[in-house]
Amino acid sequence: MIQSVQRAAQILRELAATGPRLGVTELAERIGVAKPTAHALLRTLETEGLVVQDPESSKYALGPGLVRLGNAYLDGHELRTRSMIWADALATRVNEAVWVGVLTGDHLLVVHHVFRPEGAVQILEVGATIPWNTCALGKAIVAFGSEATETELLGGELGVLTGASVSDPEVLAEQLADARSVGYAIEDQESALGDAGVAAPVFVRSGDVAGAIGVVGPVERLLSESRREEIAVAVRETGRNLSRELGATRGHTRRAG
Amino acid sequence: MIQSVQRAAQILRELAATGPRLGVTELAERIGVAKPTAHALLRTLETEGLVVQDPESSKYALGPGLVRLGNAYLDGHELRTRSMIWADALATRVNEAVWVGVLTGDHLLVVHHVFRPEGAVQILEVGATIPWNTCALGKAIVAFGSEATETELLGGELGVLTGASVSDPEVLAEQLADARSVGYAIEDQESALGDAGVAAPVFVRSGDVAGAIGVVGPVERLLSESRREEIAVAVRETGRNLSRELGATRGHTRRAG
Repeated sequence: MIQSVQRAAQILRELAATGPRLGVTELAERIGVAKPTAHALLRTLETEGLVVQDPESSKYALGPGLVRLGNAYLDGHELRTRSMIWADALATRVNEAVWVGVLTGDHLLVVHHVFRPEGAVQILEVGATIPWNTCALGKAIVAFGSEATETELLGGELGVLTGASVSDPEVLAEQLADARSVGYAIEDQESALGDAGVAAPVFVRSGDVAGAIGVVGPVERLLSESRREEIAVAVRETGRNLSRELGATRGHTRRAG
Repeated sequence: MIQSVQRAAQILRELAATGPRLGVTELAERIGVAKPTAHALLRTLETEGLVVQDPESSKYALGPGLVRLGNAYLDGHELRTRSMIWADALATRVNEAVWVGVLTGDHLLVVHHVFRPEGAVQILEVGATIPWNTCALGKAIVAFGSEATETELLGGELGVLTGASVSDPEVLAEQLADARSVGYAIEDQESALGDAGVAAPVFVRSGDVAGAIGVVGPVERLLSESRREEIAVAVRETGRNLSRELGATRGHTRRAG
């Protein structure tokens, strides 16, 4: 590990976590280095466009170069590019919005979002991050990922966004086992009141879970008795087809070992 | 400057510029370091979630942490958050899509995008980067920014995206002078065939240009004789109101010195 690079990354995380602007002294304290060191790190990051200094307050904020890098990540993301036609087809089939996401740390990151075909104004959620345990896509990824990851995540911080969010590791473990048995995971208003989700894992050739694809929308439409099964079947089939396109040869089961 | 941080940033830029995946040897060559150095940098960036290694090919790609940082940049962006109601109002007033953007290097970065109220399916352009000289927002920022920046950018690389893109520094300098005299800049199919833009600068308290706000849409609607003036007036007024909200006290003139 290269310490100065770690510290530079730590500065970026601090600026992302604690709001728009921090001074050199504050940042030096937070990352535990002397002020001249923090200053040198900030100057270097500024030259690279990763932070900017406000000319009036002399404080630092994240820089626009990060958006360019983030977009390059999304553009080069194989799951994202390969999922597009499947996501469109799923959205048309069930007439709901569709998300494709990957796990980053203990959050789901939305990498693709197809609007509901007949919907009104919708907010694009690409780039949004959601605690894994509060959304169907996050649960689908963890349920079909390695046991080691599941154990680690169940032992870590479990996000609570609504009264319905599940933060009891045992209850979550049961939900994950259920997901494995039916081939899809469900969210029932655990990330936002009124919203639900149904998601299936996406596998790659190695047998690893690359991410998940799922339907998101009002709980009344997604989890009603009349549509629940139709949506689940469509989601599971889409996950399977997309997995096949990515080279996965096996069905929806957790990887052994 | 801290060399290892510069090199780490260079790795991220290389991965962003040259496609999804590169091996350690390729990256070491591109940034001009020994392979063990490149390896140590990559391992550190991987731990921070800024790059990921593909388990099958062992090659590296940008990591999801960059999207989170990019989103944090946008969320904390004062111009973006303060411009939202003005952008909505402008979109409603002229019934067209609205962009808010900032200059990053020699590109305009779109930080906010309001869809055309009555429009059909539209692609969200937040995060898109466009050569400054090919879009109205880029020209508005440069026209009202410092003379030093204008001189530097006119002497640098000038993007060409369509047959209408202007890459002659003298012609561009005239366009910028025109923009200063009327208070807004115009794009006539210079970034995409059929598309036009009208944009005004946004100033902050210090008198510096923080960015620009403008209308984008089909050239037939935006630059027709009947609507051109109406749109220009609306854009200029919006830029002025937003500047006032950001603490700017003076009108739309280039800052002296």
